[in-house]
Amino acid sequence: MTNTTGKIFSITSFGSSHGKAIGAVIDGCPANLELSEKNIQKELDRRRPGTSSITSPRKEKDKIQILSGIFEGKTDGTPITGVVFNEDKRSKDYSYLKNTPRPGHGDYTWIEKYGNYDYNGGGRGSGRVTIGHVIGGAIAKKLLEQFGIKVISHVVQVGDIKAKTVNMNLIEEKASENPVHCADPNAAKEMEELILEYKNKGDSIGGIVETIAINVPAGLGEPIFGKLDGELAKALMEIGSVKGVEIGFGFDVANSTASQINDEYYIKDNNSDNNINNINIGTTTNTSGGILGGISNGMPIVTRIAVKPTPSISMLQNTIDLKNCEETKIEIKGRHDPCICPRVTVVSESAVAIVLADQMIRSGFINPSNLSQNID
Amino acid sequence: MTNTTGKIFSITSFGSSHGKAIGAVIDGCPANLELSEKNIQKELDRRRPGTSSITSPRKEKDKIQILSGIFEGKTDGTPITGVVFNEDKRSKDYSYLKNTPRPGHGDYTWIEKYGNYDYNGGGRGSGRVTIGHVIGGAIAKKLLEQFGIKVISHVVQVGDIKAKTVNMNLIEEKASENPVHCADPNAAKEMEELILEYKNKGDSIGGIVETIAINVPAGLGEPIFGKLDGELAKALMEIGSVKGVEIGFGFDVANSTASQINDEYYIKDNNSDNNINNINIGTTTNTSGGILGGISNGMPIVTRIAVKPTPSISMLQNTIDLKNCEETKIEIKGRHDPCICPRVTVVSESAVAIVLADQMIRSGFINPSNLSQNID
Amino acid sequence: MTNTTGKIFSITSFGSSHGKAIGAVIDGCPANLELSEKNIQKELDRRRPGTSSITSPRKEKDKIQILSGIFEGKTDGTPITGVVFNEDKRSKDYSYLKNTPRPGHGDYTWIEKYGNYDYNGGGRGSGRVTIGHVIGGAIAKKLLEQFGIKVISHVVQVGDIKAKTVNMNLIEEKASENPVHCADPNAAKEMEELILEYKNKGDSIGGIVETIAINVPAGLGEPIFGKLDGELAKALMEIGSVKGVEIGFGFDVANSTASQINDEYYIKDNNSDNNINNINIGTTTNTSGGILGGISNGMPIVTRIAVKPTPSISMLQNTIDLKNCEETKIEIKGRHDPCICPRVTVVSESAVAIVLADQMIRSGFINPSNLSQNID
Amino acid sequence: MTNTTGKIFSITSFGSSHGKAIGAVIDGCPANLELSEKNIQKELDRRRPGTSSITSPRKEKDKIQILSGIFEGKTDGTPITGVVFNEDKRSKDYSYLKNTPRPGHGDYTWIEKYGNYDYNGGGRGSGRVTIGHVIGGAIAKKLLEQFGIKVISHVVQVGDIKAKTVNMNLIEEKASENPVHCADPNAAKEMEELILEYKNKGDSIGGIVETIAINVPAGLGEPIFGKLDGELAKALMEIGSVKGVEIGFGFDVANSTASQINDEYYIKDNNSDNNINNINIGTTTNTSGGILGGISNGMPIVTRIAVKPTPSISMLQNTIDLKNCEETKIEIKGRHDPCICPRVTVVSESAVAIVLADQMIRSGFINPSNLSQNID
Repeated sequence: MTNTTGKIFSITSFGSSHGKAIGAVIDGCPANLELSEKNIQKELDRRRPGTSSITSPRKEKDKIQILSGIFEGKTDGTPITGVVFNEDKRSKDYSYLKNTPRPGHGDYTWIEKYGNYDYNGGGRGSGRVTIGHVIGGAIAKKLLEQFGIKVISHVVQVGDIKAKTVNMNLIEEKASENPVHCADPNAAKEMEELILEYKNKGDSIGGIVETIAINVPAGLGEPIFGKLDGELAKALMEIGSVKGVEIGFGFDVANSTASQINDEYYIKDNNSDNNINNINIGTTTNTSGGILGGISNGMPIVTRIAVKPTPSISMLQNTIDLKNCEETKIEIKGRHDPCICPRVTVVSESAVAIVLADQMIRSGFINPSNLSQNID
Repeated sequence: MTNTTGKIFSITSFGSSHGKAIGAVIDGCPANLELSEKNIQKELDRRRPGTSSITSPRKEKDKIQILSGIFEGKTDGTPITGVVFNEDKRSKDYSYLKNTPRPGHGDYTWIEKYGNYDYNGGGRGSGRVTIGHVIGGAIAKKLLEQFGIKVISHVVQVGDIKAKTVNMNLIEEKASENPVHCADPNAAKEMEELILEYKNKGDSIGGIVETIAINVPAGLGEPIFGKLDGELAKALMEIGSVKGVEIGFGFDVANSTASQINDEYYIKDNNSDNNINNINIGTTTNTSGGILGGISNGMPIVTRIAVKPTPSISMLQNTIDLKNCEETKIEIKGRHDPCICPRVTVVSESAVAIVLADQMIRSGFINPSNLSQNID
Repeated sequence: MTNTTGKIFSITSFGSSHGKAIGAVIDGCPANLELSEKNIQKELDRRRPGTSSITSPRKEKDKIQILSGIFEGKTDGTPITGVVFNEDKRSKDYSYLKNTPRPGHGDYTWIEKYGNYDYNGGGRGSGRVTIGHVIGGAIAKKLLEQFGIKVISHVVQVGDIKAKTVNMNLIEEKASENPVHCADPNAAKEMEELILEYKNKGDSIGGIVETIAINVPAGLGEPIFGKLDGELAKALMEIGSVKGVEIGFGFDVANSTASQINDEYYIKDNNSDNNINNINIGTTTNTSGGILGGISNGMPIVTRIAVKPTPSISMLQNTIDLKNCEETKIEIKGRHDPCICPRVTVVSESAVAIVLADQMIRSGFINPSNLSQNID
Repeated sequence: MTNTTGKIFSITSFGSSHGKAIGAVIDGCPANLELSEKNIQKELDRRRPGTSSITSPRKEKDKIQILSGIFEGKTDGTPITGVVFNEDKRSKDYSYLKNTPRPGHGDYTWIEKYGNYDYNGGGRGSGRVTIGHVIGGAIAKKLLEQFGIKVISHVVQVGDIKAKTVNMNLIEEKASENPVHCADPNAAKEMEELILEYKNKGDSIGGIVETIAINVPAGLGEPIFGKLDGELAKALMEIGSVKGVEIGFGFDVANSTASQINDEYYIKDNNSDNNINNINIGTTTNTSGGILGGISNGMPIVTRIAVKPTPSISMLQNTIDLKNCEETKIEIKGRHDPCICPRVTVVSESAVAIVLADQMIRSGFINPSNLSQNID
């Protein structure tokens, strides 16, 4: 199994839903970044279950402990290990899952591949492992912040309810004001009602999460393999439940012409010296989502992911009893999210931030060893 | 720059549109696979321009030469180098592009990142570099074939014209019967007309290409990072012009409930012995597109990519003169594809095949060194 | 910083001498290997200081805790996290090192590269970080054991005292009988006296550690890059204090002729069927140390490393005061090993075992996901 | 098979002794480095056989052709492909080797691992594949030159003849003046005689090659895995025939005390401002060979490799007939080097230069995309 992602700034994730702990080792973060457990805890709290009526009621404090990598309040260039010990496990709930894979979950493929499967709460297949992503994302975001880069996520669709476009500068604030994390307050209200409706039915509903990165410099990514959009697509598709990834105009390009969507260049800002390196170039539209030919162009990077409805539902479903080799039915007990999109927002931010942090170093914008060499 | 993809079965791609040659080194292919230049030429011919009224009229034979890796008609485990020398270059056409980036192309980001840019025909940013992908894909497909795995692509949408669903077993044959490579003959005819309409306008149109892999065993991919869908998303997004990737139900999951789309298990085939290893398990639906929890489940793997309209259009567009630091207009000359989807089909097949070949080795289904150790 | 080694079976190491914890995440170990904390503790105890008069008197229990990756007594294919919490820290001892790098240590290069340096006990530059190697090595050895492969180390030289050759089957037992871990009891006694002599002088002495792997199948490693000897050389050179690595005859080949050292082939064992696959081929000598053309040939793999004298000595040494920009002198306080070779034995075994475990998977001898698929 | 080395600046090597061509793709070289075929040819000519009475008489021009990566005389950031077509093949000489592995060569392990073996001239196991290393090395050296770094090799031992120490600044010139490439003219003469003596006997002799890199900045490499000495050890051990690698004092540390070999610091150069960043720190001795704690310290990097006698000798040797499953004898025909050390010098330089170029980029000293961003 491979549990590491990132070429220079990398995350090695470990742990399972009902084991001792979940965590991640973040390697390749340059020294001299101020970092504390608070910076990470703040992000973990956004992912935590039990915070509203539309998330799973599992009670977990998800308290972070940093075991290594920080010296006198700053990163020292060594690997940063963040660990969350599991508390509210209730593993007795899960024994009936041992031989009957849940439809829509990874149980069956896991058993098929590894043989020995920790079925408690989905084991390492649980959404709970995204704690590792969020630890990594929190550090990546702190690093990107030093260079003015901001990564923000919001829910733009739940079922058939679509949010209206919101000014980019308001998204973060507006999305934080409701449990759905949708920046359009009217849509947010409708989405919440829809989610509760499915919750009451014992069913769940999908949606779309948009993630935007602003102030990303032109020049991240590579033109053939290692494209910035390729790395983002991988990182976003690796979030459990994601079945589609779009950059910029996404699938709408299929029914567009080049004359409609080619982003034309203009001079945003021309300093008096007429030196091309000091001229700020922009595009009048941003259908490319900030990436052209695999490389960022300085415009906001815009990604969207299609998130499927949580497969854990209380309705009776057909499956196989792998022990007795016969078809059977399953009713999944336990505590589920009727729509996982709100909790996915911070995970999507993390995925994007990790890719960007890695690319900022790989592309020579951040010194790989020592942050003060950038600043001084 | 990174021009290598794949962990074990890997492709290192090189060359540019108007340089001496384009090619790829395929490494990690086990020894004892029968392979000839014909196997690769066949696939290159599907990508070649100038084959119909709806593709670019550039005349290139794209003749493959294998420089290494084959001994007595079989791979010998050493790196396979395939090279195509460029012939119909006409580089005089391109000098006006030196300082004026074309909207929708990678010119601007390339200049920004690398400084020294071969602007002839798009240089290495040209779609012509997918020759490298196709060489790699041809070898990957030959390897997968030994294990009964088949990868096929077809165009399912151009502009607002969508193809009707076609029986999976007929797609390859039907799609080969028309220049659009659409398996629905009626839609194909309409698509062709639409493409010619945009060609005449000097504009271009986007579309969607679907790629399906059948007979893929359960167990490819990994559950967290290194997910099979993550690797596929990366490989597909790394095809130039792709702005979105879907697996299975894709973006339709956003407006679906779990009770609608959870794929339920059933026993396809129970050999008399009731041993679970000899029972063939399937799902009644395949909204997952053959991948659950990042791992293949034995059902067909279904991907779709959104392909943007070719940005090279003859209409006048706004851009920047980077030398004189002023806004200007550009009219792109030369030979373009009014819809690149038909030619993308073989590239998408290649991308998927390369990922699957790599995963078949990484997941222990194919011996990494010597194919005869699988067969004997 | 990169703290991961291994392509499939990999170790990500973290932690520092006087931080909260030291440990490692072992990824890519197939599921279904029986594994407990005892298996790891046994090896850590061999590395632990304070066990004899010739090792550092620092008191550490080095008690392992496994945080993830084991389910019902067996690996489940997920990353295995092993952690040792630091106890006997005494960090007050080290403040005087903040700005005065110790000769022969990595302090100066660390400060130069990372800026923020945890100088307590050498921080992450301490030999204590080999706890991570040993955790990984213990798991690798357990895995290799299933395939009959054994890795053993012994001290063959300390100062000018060289051990006599000992029968390969007796090395492990004999080396465990004395604190120097030398398999020749007479030499061991002399070495111990020599070490104590230097200890009393406040000085230290170097030596040579040999590591042998037996029952390694022919076919590990690759012929150009990724050579088995290349991987071993890297892993062994990455043990702190190592300044030289030899395979087989090593530096003695410089003064040898091919007619003297070419290992000639013979048939060790010919089963009646005369099928080449059932014939056991050996070489009459093993100057190659079990590796030819970068690939194992089935003979014992023999490596030797040159280990420098521990640079921490109590004698006065010249150095630089980096704060005041002037030359100064340093006297290193604290608890040191007068000869680190005895404690390096288990680290060298670990390094070799990790490389072999990785290669056994990469070369197709061990199923990457599920050990039972090898055995059943 | 893996034929790629290097993390950012990387070489993918391909081809075999008697196939169509041998070459390499060099990726990750920043744009704007002036580079021509001449720069590479010059280095290939140093590796070429047939240049003196003590090298193999095979006649090969080894003429380089660059297929990609250069635009208007400079690298453009895209992969550089260098190819040498094989000319003087004489493959009829080798058919008798098909089933009888040569002692000391990689034939047996190759057959065992890959099954399909190109036995002509050793196929890809031939020393001729180091053409790929040298192409990569030539580019790496050109890149390093821009930063004042120089890499030089010389033969320091052949058989029992050891060269006297020569002033570092004279090594390159002195070593180029004789066919042995030994910087001590008296020893060079004796070595040449010794080599001719073994040539006449149909035997061969080993030796030691030293490689030194000067003006390497402090700060290359990483402290645990990815140590600069670990990377060098791997690269050097991956040169065929190398059985040992030393850094600095190497194996002599075994019989040294810390008080003898700890390199003490002093101030080489103190600019008037007393700012530590402007003070040049050196060590009075350099037993560390320029690397401490895995990281370069600014002193010359010194490596030595033990090169075994070429195993191809005309004397009768015992081996196995793998087809008839019986012991047999072999007499190797053809053209051999009685001592390969002189030709290994440029290969060793290449290996070291490739590692340093990669590390200069990885450690933030060279911009990964565009060299002019370093210089301007």
